[in-house]
Amino acid sequence: MLNERLLKQIEFIKEIDNVKYIQRKTKLFNSDRNENDAEHSWHLALMVLVLTEHSNQPIDVLKVLKMVLIHDIVEIDARDTFIYDTQKSHSNTEEERLAANRIFGMLPKEQADEFIAIWEEFEAGETHEAKFARAMDRLAPLLQNTSNNGGTWQEFGVKYSKVYEKKSVIKEGSDTIWNFAEGLINESVEIGILKK
Amino acid sequence: MLNERLLKQIEFIKEIDNVKYIQRKTKLFNSDRNENDAEHSWHLALMVLVLTEHSNQPIDVLKVLKMVLIHDIVEIDARDTFIYDTQKSHSNTEEERLAANRIFGMLPKEQADEFIAIWEEFEAGETHEAKFARAMDRLAPLLQNTSNNGGTWQEFGVKYSKVYEKKSVIKEGSDTIWNFAEGLINESVEIGILKK
Ligand SMILES: [Ca+2]
Repeated sequence: MLNERLLKQIEFIKEIDNVKYIQRKTKLFNSDRNENDAEHSWHLALMVLVLTEHSNQPIDVLKVLKMVLIHDIVEIDARDTFIYDTQKSHSNTEEERLAANRIFGMLPKEQADEFIAIWEEFEAGETHEAKFARAMDRLAPLLQNTSNNGGTWQEFGVKYSKVYEKKSVIKEGSDTIWNFAEGLINESVEIGILKK
Repeated sequence: MLNERLLKQIEFIKEIDNVKYIQRKTKLFNSDRNENDAEHSWHLALMVLVLTEHSNQPIDVLKVLKMVLIHDIVEIDARDTFIYDTQKSHSNTEEERLAANRIFGMLPKEQADEFIAIWEEFEAGETHEAKFARAMDRLAPLLQNTSNNGGTWQEFGVKYSKVYEKKSVIKEGSDTIWNFAEGLINESVEIGILKK
């Protein structure tokens, strides 16, 4: 007895295994092993569960979880874009849009539509949920880089002003977490792992 | 300005990075690369999001997500126990309980209590949410092993009857998914990647 919907869903579940092969520039904590997108997304989900209380606004936690769990799936086709890459715009490239249509499009229609809408909402960064999800996505590599003597900042020569600008997005999701993050950035300058 | 709760939560977030180092016996799809617990937990979360409609009973999706996202964190201290290991009981060893207390105990008290309760609920496998979460946890390696010419069944000489017994837990969460899983198990016997 075939269940057409289930078979489509299973094909999607197999396809997204590829997220585990997508290497980020960022390394694990106190490590020189690169993180992959699946591990990264799992870690963000845990951060959402643990840090929700610090959101500036009340948020729908289930929706934020969906955002962080699926936000990097498009990179199966579009690959990871380094946030400090000056050549390529980070968000919502045509390539990512095609990837979203192909990969989420493997699911039954209304599920595909829901996932694409959630991905777009995350990318747009305008709702309270998207702002908090994006705050988590910016906080994670800040914690990693400070644990790794500057990590990608050192490796790619990224300066304080650029880091401060990119990380200040955290403030839109949480003033409390931004206070903490700003402290970490300033401390990184003081101890010499981030250059002014 | 110190936020005591946030600092505890950040220490927990750093600690659970260790989940990314815990290797499972199971390999990625069509691959000989071992999966780690963080990737595995992320994949289960996606399976929950996609397959909820097949649950035998209405379930609280947010709670099921919490279960699959945190269920392997205790393995930081207790290490991965192979499901077909005959020496060691799989669930709720004293070692795992101590690990839950230590690791979740890094969080502010009421969060620690919530996480420990959710982990215990998952382990007990009695609520609708726990049954569905456990169904996902059994389905994932079935999909992986069938994609890998028998995978851990071949590698460790696990027989049909044992696999059938362990996987039949899926039925408690979803008859529809169990129908599909049972078909996969029988097909595996027919094509010779699982021995009767
Ligand atoms: Ca990314």
